[in-house]
Amino acid sequence: MPILQAVVNIAELLHQKGITDVVVCPGSRSAPLTLAVARHPRLRVRVMADERSAGFVALGMAQQRRQPVAIICTSGSAVYNLAPAVAEAYFQQVPLLLLTADRPHEWLYQQDGQTIDQVGIFGNQVKRGYDLPADYTHADARWFIERTLNEAINLSRLSPAGPVHVNVPLREPFYPTADEAFTYERVRVIDVLAAPPTLPTETWHQLLAVWDRTERVLIAVGQLPCDPAMLAILKKFSDELGVPVVGEITGNIPMNDSFITKGDTFLSGLTDSAGQGFRPDLLITIGNSFLTRNLKTFFRQYPAQQHWHIQPTADRINDSFQSLTTLIPAEPLPFLEKLFADVDYQRFLQGDDEDETNGFLSHWQAADRLAAKLVQQTVSDPGDLLTDWSAVQLVLDQLPEGSVLHLANSMPVRYANLCGIHERQHISVWGNRGVSGIDGCLSTALGAALITDQLVTVLIGDVAFFYDRNALWSAPVPPNLRIILLNNDSGHIFRIIDGPSRQPELEAYFETPHGYTAKRTAEDAGIRYQSGNTIESLRSLLPDFFQPGPTAALLELTTDKLANQQLFTRYKENVKTQISPKL
Amino acid sequence: MPILQAVVNIAELLHQKGITDVVVCPGSRSAPLTLAVARHPRLRVRVMADERSAGFVALGMAQQRRQPVAIICTSGSAVYNLAPAVAEAYFQQVPLLLLTADRPHEWLYQQDGQTIDQVGIFGNQVKRGYDLPADYTHADARWFIERTLNEAINLSRLSPAGPVHVNVPLREPFYPTADEAFTYERVRVIDVLAAPPTLPTETWHQLLAVWDRTERVLIAVGQLPCDPAMLAILKKFSDELGVPVVGEITGNIPMNDSFITKGDTFLSGLTDSAGQGFRPDLLITIGNSFLTRNLKTFFRQYPAQQHWHIQPTADRINDSFQSLTTLIPAEPLPFLEKLFADVDYQRFLQGDDEDETNGFLSHWQAADRLAAKLVQQTVSDPGDLLTDWSAVQLVLDQLPEGSVLHLANSMPVRYANLCGIHERQHISVWGNRGVSGIDGCLSTALGAALITDQLVTVLIGDVAFFYDRNALWSAPVPPNLRIILLNNDSGHIFRIIDGPSRQPELEAYFETPHGYTAKRTAEDAGIRYQSGNTIESLRSLLPDFFQPGPTAALLELTTDKLANQQLFTRYKENVKTQISPKL
Repeated sequence: MPILQAVVNIAELLHQKGITDVVVCPGSRSAPLTLAVARHPRLRVRVMADERSAGFVALGMAQQRRQPVAIICTSGSAVYNLAPAVAEAYFQQVPLLLLTADRPHEWLYQQDGQTIDQVGIFGNQVKRGYDLPADYTHADARWFIERTLNEAINLSRLSPAGPVHVNVPLREPFYPTADEAFTYERVRVIDVLAAPPTLPTETWHQLLAVWDRTERVLIAVGQLPCDPAMLAILKKFSDELGVPVVGEITGNIPMNDSFITKGDTFLSGLTDSAGQGFRPDLLITIGNSFLTRNLKTFFRQYPAQQHWHIQPTADRINDSFQSLTTLIPAEPLPFLEKLFADVDYQRFLQGDDEDETNGFLSHWQAADRLAAKLVQQTVSDPGDLLTDWSAVQLVLDQLPEGSVLHLANSMPVRYANLCGIHERQHISVWGNRGVSGIDGCLSTALGAALITDQLVTVLIGDVAFFYDRNALWSAPVPPNLRIILLNNDSGHIFRIIDGPSRQPELEAYFETPHGYTAKRTAEDAGIRYQSGNTIESLRSLLPDFFQPGPTAALLELTTDKLANQQLFTRYKENVKTQISPKL
Repeated sequence: MPILQAVVNIAELLHQKGITDVVVCPGSRSAPLTLAVARHPRLRVRVMADERSAGFVALGMAQQRRQPVAIICTSGSAVYNLAPAVAEAYFQQVPLLLLTADRPHEWLYQQDGQTIDQVGIFGNQVKRGYDLPADYTHADARWFIERTLNEAINLSRLSPAGPVHVNVPLREPFYPTADEAFTYERVRVIDVLAAPPTLPTETWHQLLAVWDRTERVLIAVGQLPCDPAMLAILKKFSDELGVPVVGEITGNIPMNDSFITKGDTFLSGLTDSAGQGFRPDLLITIGNSFLTRNLKTFFRQYPAQQHWHIQPTADRINDSFQSLTTLIPAEPLPFLEKLFADVDYQRFLQGDDEDETNGFLSHWQAADRLAAKLVQQTVSDPGDLLTDWSAVQLVLDQLPEGSVLHLANSMPVRYANLCGIHERQHISVWGNRGVSGIDGCLSTALGAALITDQLVTVLIGDVAFFYDRNALWSAPVPPNLRIILLNNDSGHIFRIIDGPSRQPELEAYFETPHGYTAKRTAEDAGIRYQSGNTIESLRSLLPDFFQPGPTAALLELTTDKLANQQLFTRYKENVKTQISPKL
C-alpha cells in the first residue's frame, strides 16, 4: 500500500494519540481508511450502515470514554448524514474526529457520483475543518497530513472539547491487492502540554473581596457529566457556606438534603416580592445548557447584581441569563475548589469558621421541599392509571444503583427532571441537550452501552424512538441496553406546551399520531420485548427488566395522551394554588 | 397574527407563485410557517416527522410536479437532517424551497435549545441561501421578506433548477391566540420573464460548418427526465442523420431500433483498434451524470476531436469526459431541434436529403445488438434460480405501460441499466444520480407516488431500503406505490466491484449482513407484503402485484449473494470471450 501509506499511518496515529474506538460506515471511497483501522491490532472498530445513527453512536461512546471517537464515512451525502450528531457534539462539547473520504477535488462539479463540496461542510458546527491533499508523493504533503491529524486530535480534546473534521480526498487506485500486507510506519506524535487558564493572585483577591461583601451567593449548574468531585465541592458550598446550589437532572445534580432540584416547579408564577426573595446578589454559573424554562426565566427576571460564568475559554460571551458581568476563564471544578478553600481560609482568619446558616439558603431549600412534596403527590394522584410522568417516576425510583441513564428529548427529560434522582442511587445522567434534537437519542444511548459495563437505560418517547430506530439495525445491540419507550402515539410535547395545544391543527400538524408499536422493531432487532399499560404491570415488570441478560430489552409503556395532558394541567394548577401563595 | 403577518403572507406568496405542495416537519419554532400553510385554502400540505425522509419525499414530489416543492422544518439539527436531500436536489437540479425556522440570531451560542448556526448552512449545496429578519415592524423589513421569497422561488426554477434556502428566524410569541383568524394579505408577485440563452446566427453558422466537415458525430445523453419530444428529436438524429445516440436508463433512453443502450456492456475491455472504431470526431453531450463507468472511461480514453456540451448556464465547465472543447449555453431540447432543422435544410440545399446511412452508426448499432443478445442470454442462464439481475429483468419486462419507475442506488440502477426498458413500455425513469446516495431512494419514490396517479415502482436493495424505512412511517403510504425489494442481506455492490471483493474484510466491514426481512416493516406501515425466492414465484406474483389496490405493496425477493456474484462474474467472462473479440 505504498501509495496510500500516509493514509494507513492515520490509523497508527489514532492509536498513538490514545484513540481506542472507531465507528466505520461502509463505503468504497473510504476503503483505505476502513482497512487501515480494521487491520490495526489496537483499534476497536464497529460498523454501522446508517451514518446518522453512527454519528450519534460515536457521540455516546465518546461521552463514556471521555476521549475522542473517530468516525469514518464515504463521500457524498453520507457526510451530511453525520451532521446532526456533529452539531449535537459541538454544542454538548463532546470530542469526535470525523474522517470523511472524498473524491479528489478535481472531480467536483464534473457529474461524478457521490461528489459534493465537502471542504468546510460542517460550517460553524465543528471546532475546525481540515482538508488533506490527494497526493502524498511530496514529503511536505506527508508532513502536512501527520501534523494535521495531530492538531485535529489535540483540538478535539482541548477544553471545551468538540468535533473536528478532517476531509480525506482519495485518488484511485485505493484498494490494496488481494495479498498485500499493511505496514504501520512509525508516526510522529505531537503532544500539547496541558496549560489550564490560571487567574493571577490579584484577581483572586478581587473575587474574594466581592464574595466577602456579598450576602446572597447562588451557584446554578447547567448540563455537566456526572462527577463525584464536583458534587463534593458543591455540597461544601451549600453546607458550609450557605450557598444554594441550583441544578437539574441533566447537570447531574441529584436530590439530597442540600441541593435545589425543583426550581422548575417553584420558580414559576412568582409574585415580584417572592421573586425578590430568591434573587441572589452574586450568581455563579457553570456547565452547559439549562433544561427548564422556568429556571432560565427566573434568572433573567431577577438578575443578580454580579454574575460570574466559569468556562474554560474566553472567546465567546455566554450570557444566557442576560445578566453576566464577569466571564471567568477557568475549568469549573478547580475554580470552585480554590474558591472554596480561599473563602474558607479567609473565614478561618476572621475567626468565622462555623458553617454559615443564612436565611437565603433555607428559603430556597424550604421551597424545594415544598415543591418536591407537591410533585410527589401530583404524580401519584391518578392511582393505578399509568401516565408518562408516573412511569418515569417509577422507573427512576427503581434504576439499578450506579447505572447509566439516557434521557431523550423532548418530554422524557422534562418529566425526569420534575421527578429527580436521589444521590444515593449514583446514577450517571446523559441527554442530548447541546442541540436538543430527537434525532439521535436512541443511538447515543446505544453508543454508551457499547463502552460501559454498567446497565444503560434510555427513557424515550415514541417519535424519538421511531425516528432513530436504525440505531437497532446494523450493529449487534449491546445486552446492557434497556429501552423504556413511552408510547402515547404522538409528539406529546405539543399537547403539553401552551402554544400548539390551543391550535385546531394540534393533532394533524404537530402531534402526528402514527399508530406504531415497537414490538416488530424489537423483534427485527432481536431484543427482548415487553409491554405494559398500568402502574401495576410496570411495577411487576421492572425488577426483571433491570436484571442483566443475554440481550438488550425494550419495555413499551402505552399511555393515553389525554390522561397525560390532564395530569400536567392538574400539576400546573396545584403549583398555582399550593406553591406560589406560600412563597 | 399581526406581528407575524409577514410570515403568514409567505403562504400566500407560495400560492401566487405557483407552488402547490408543501411538506411540513412538526416543530414548535416553525409553528407560524406551519399554521400559515396549513390554513391556506390552496396549498396541499403533507406532514412527516423524519426530516431526512421528508426532504427526499419533497424531492420526489418536485420531480413529478416539475415545480418547486416547499419544505418547512424547525430549528436546530432538524435542518441538518434535510441536507442529504438538499445535496441530491442540487446536483440533480430539482427545485426545492427550504423554509427553516430559526431562533433569532441573538440566541446563538447562548446555550439555547435547538440553536445552531443556520445561516448558509447548506454551503455550496444550494443555489443560494437567504436569511430573513426576525423583526418586521419596519416596512423595509417586510419589503425584504416579500422580495426575497420572490427571488428565492424564481431562482429555484431558473435553469438549472435547484434547492434554495430561506432561513426564517422567529421571535416569541409566535403562536396565535386560540380564536385568532389568519388573514392572507395581498402580496406582490415579482415575475422573471423567460429569456433562454440564444446563440447568434453567426455562431450557428460556425457550428454548422464544423458539423458539415465532420464525419463521425455522436450524441451521448446523461441523466434526463423522460421527455417524448427529446426522444423524437434524438431519433431523427439517429435515423435521418446517421448519428449514434448513446444513452442509459437514467437518461430515459429506451431500447428501440435506433438508440445505443448497451454501451456499459460492449465498451469494456476494448482493444485500441476497436476503441478507435467507436471514437466520434464530434461528441455532443446533454443531460446530467452518466451512470456507467465503462461509458465514461471509453469517452475519456478515446476523446473526440471536438466535444460540445449543451447546458443552460455557462458559469461552470463540466468536463466529465476530459475532452470538452465548446460549452454551449442552451437548453438541450431547443438546441437539438434547431441543430437538426439547420442541418436538414443545409442538406436539402445541397440536394442531399436522403437518410444518412454511414458505417459509424451501423457499427455502434451492431455492437449494441450483440451486447443485448449476450445480456439476454446471460441473465436467463441460471434457469429458475432467482438472482437480483434476473429479478430486475422480469420486473422491467412486466412494468405496467406508462408507469413510473424509481431505481435505487447502488446495484438496482446498474442491473436495470444492463437490462434496459423498451420504448413501447413508455416508462418514466428516475433515480437519485445527483449524489448517488442510498439514503433517500425509498422516500423519493414515495414522494413521486403522492403526486402522480400512475403506478410508481421502486426497485431497491436491502441496505437502501432499511436505511430509509422511515419513508413508510409517518405519512399514509400512497396506494400506487410498489416496492420491489432485492434482499441479499448485504451491501451487495461491494462483492460485485473489484476492490472490496478481494479484501478479507469484505463481509464484516463492507457488506455488513443484518439478517432483516421487510415483513414486519411492511406490517407496521400497513402495506401489503409478499415474498418470493424463485423465478417462478416472481413470475406468478407480478401480475397481481402491479394491479391497482387499496394499499401500497411490497414484494421482497430473497436472493443469494454468492449466486448473484457468480452470475456477474460469468457475465464479465462472457463479455470478454464473446463480445470484445468481435469488435
